[in-house]
Amino acid sequence: MNEQPAAGQPVASEQGQMLQGLLRTSIDLGSMRDRQELLERILSEARRLSGAEAGSLYVRAGDQLEFALAQNDAIDVSEIARTYLGHRLKIDTRSLAGFVAHTGRGLNIPDSYHLAPGTPFRMNRDFDAASGYTTASILALPLTCPDGEVVGVLELINRLDPAGGRVPFPDKDSAALTSLATLAAVNVHNALLIEELMEARLDTIMRLSVAAEFRDKGTARHINRISGLSALIFETLGLGAEQVEMIRHASPMHDIGKIAVPDSILLKPGKLTAEERRIVETHSVVGAQILGDPKNELMAMARDIALSHHERWDGKGYPHRLGGVKIPLPARAVCLADVFDALASERCYKQAFPMGQVIDIIRSEKGGHFDPRMVEAFLEVTDRFIATYQGEQLAPD
Amino acid sequence: MNEQPAAGQPVASEQGQMLQGLLRTSIDLGSMRDRQELLERILSEARRLSGAEAGSLYVRAGDQLEFALAQNDAIDVSEIARTYLGHRLKIDTRSLAGFVAHTGRGLNIPDSYHLAPGTPFRMNRDFDAASGYTTASILALPLTCPDGEVVGVLELINRLDPAGGRVPFPDKDSAALTSLATLAAVNVHNALLIEELMEARLDTIMRLSVAAEFRDKGTARHINRISGLSALIFETLGLGAEQVEMIRHASPMHDIGKIAVPDSILLKPGKLTAEERRIVETHSVVGAQILGDPKNELMAMARDIALSHHERWDGKGYPHRLGGVKIPLPARAVCLADVFDALASERCYKQAFPMGQVIDIIRSEKGGHFDPRMVEAFLEVTDRFIATYQGEQLAPD
Repeated sequence: MNEQPAAGQPVASEQGQMLQGLLRTSIDLGSMRDRQELLERILSEARRLSGAEAGSLYVRAGDQLEFALAQNDAIDVSEIARTYLGHRLKIDTRSLAGFVAHTGRGLNIPDSYHLAPGTPFRMNRDFDAASGYTTASILALPLTCPDGEVVGVLELINRLDPAGGRVPFPDKDSAALTSLATLAAVNVHNALLIEELMEARLDTIMRLSVAAEFRDKGTARHINRISGLSALIFETLGLGAEQVEMIRHASPMHDIGKIAVPDSILLKPGKLTAEERRIVETHSVVGAQILGDPKNELMAMARDIALSHHERWDGKGYPHRLGGVKIPLPARAVCLADVFDALASERCYKQAFPMGQVIDIIRSEKGGHFDPRMVEAFLEVTDRFIATYQGEQLAPD
Repeated sequence: MNEQPAAGQPVASEQGQMLQGLLRTSIDLGSMRDRQELLERILSEARRLSGAEAGSLYVRAGDQLEFALAQNDAIDVSEIARTYLGHRLKIDTRSLAGFVAHTGRGLNIPDSYHLAPGTPFRMNRDFDAASGYTTASILALPLTCPDGEVVGVLELINRLDPAGGRVPFPDKDSAALTSLATLAAVNVHNALLIEELMEARLDTIMRLSVAAEFRDKGTARHINRISGLSALIFETLGLGAEQVEMIRHASPMHDIGKIAVPDSILLKPGKLTAEERRIVETHSVVGAQILGDPKNELMAMARDIALSHHERWDGKGYPHRLGGVKIPLPARAVCLADVFDALASERCYKQAFPMGQVIDIIRSEKGGHFDPRMVEAFLEVTDRFIATYQGEQLAPD
């Protein structure tokens, strides 16, 4: 076996160092879970390899390209970039990035203010106008997977010579840059697939949870609000992004057990008898049965929420009269979100309470109906709570 | 910019070639969607780099290790490997692979039949006994992600010297092998994540679809069967794996619209009036509403199925009296699966038909109720159809 150095060990030649660097980058890119972090790293590596002062990155979104990132060593572009974030371009020959994605070919433009005659696309000058920066030379590369799929476009802007002067990019792309573009494409593709699967999962949960509420409230809004409000509480409590996303996905299923409550009780306009009340309350246990034998953490959290979101901090709730920290944390959060939503909304049997009164009721139930920590989190971000309640669509779009 | 060669271009040094090869492997591994193909490539690359005649690969599954793959250049081990596939080991110090995963440390064993005194684990000799092969030298490496998570174990077996003699592995792992192990870990981790998300998605759909059927049939079995039978029809029609998996996930939601049918009708023991029948039949349109505005291909297929699984090939179905190829293909497949399941099963208002009679009815409805192609597919695999109906749990376990 040859004892050859690879990533992480010294190598002799310049070429070996370059390859070693790419290999290290490859491992890093594959490990990154956060899409924005991944894109930042791709763009900064590409700029380093090409000597570009600035750059932008577009990511494919369906049949369009979405502006995802700008970097610039000369001026602070974060403000301007933010306003363009999510801006979409058609994949056709009318824009530079669109052209590159459409044709799958890289473009080397010595001076973007003097395009060759017959160039099919027009340069968008908005960014230069807003920033005062001059985009002279551009090297635009498609991020192409080995199977030929283009998942994004890299724009490298203003190559700097050793003296700091702005010069065109060389005619021939370096092999390192070509390799990086392929590596970047593979990793962006994987990140998009994972994102897509996560969004599709939330979409499925939302639809089917709404279906379960169909007979009851007939609207997706309640489900969406509980999802957003519960996630906001978890975020305010300082829980990590993973837990926040998990409660966002698990909470919509809290009332799934209502499926088993007969119409005659669920839709009864008047006051329920004690027996009818008992039957309605079975929805928490039935919900836990439907979500029982969980195959993953998300379903385990959903089951805990379905079972215990009507438990009270003071032990007077149902079905098991659990109190305090015996109630799973996610159920305590959804409990407050659910009561808040019920108070603030109009129902067939009641008017909506004014928001001031809703807040007073929540505050007065600190340590009674609700975990004091949940009430504190609510009071800390009441404005965001109300904004979330009042209509952000929190399902993925 | 330095014009340096990278993956795909000639380089001068041996070390450069090795790095270039790893970079190419890195791109390939990142692009592989099929888990088994990915593992095959990892093991064969690792064997090539280490000169190993044989090797095995274990992948982490929860708190255990699962045997996933064996390769051997000396003898055909495919039969024996198949019998061990899916076999699980505890992650502790009692087995070689368990030890490596538990400690996160590689092990170099010159001769597995003469372990050093004090070695905590015992060698499992079953494979050697079954194959007649002698596992002498072993180099066992953990597949460790950059964050320290071990996702698998690589066992390289019997290093060959240039003359083909079996010799121990060198004391120091080559840097190339170390890099490959990290690359492999990152890619296996991503593949497992994608698999997990897909399985979790099916699990969610199954649970919530079952919930929607709760009032009607009260069982997960019908849903599971429709899923499996529809997938089997698609497979028999020769559709690709992606479409087969898609109908497996989309078909369980076919009756979701029944949520809107009142108990008084849905649970009525006797014959329905014409008006009640009309209300029951709304479930296809309501289902399509719930699944409407699809965010992805899966939901689009689910909507088509919900809307059109009661259409008939002869145009006499509902809700739109579509006929022939105007009915979406997935709905035609689910239609046959649903009718088959209804005929073969006992319901509150009827006995189960004997299987022979069920087959006759399906055959007789070729070109009537059913698309002739669906009936032909059914007749081609009737035995597998019946086996699937009779109880394979087709949800992921």
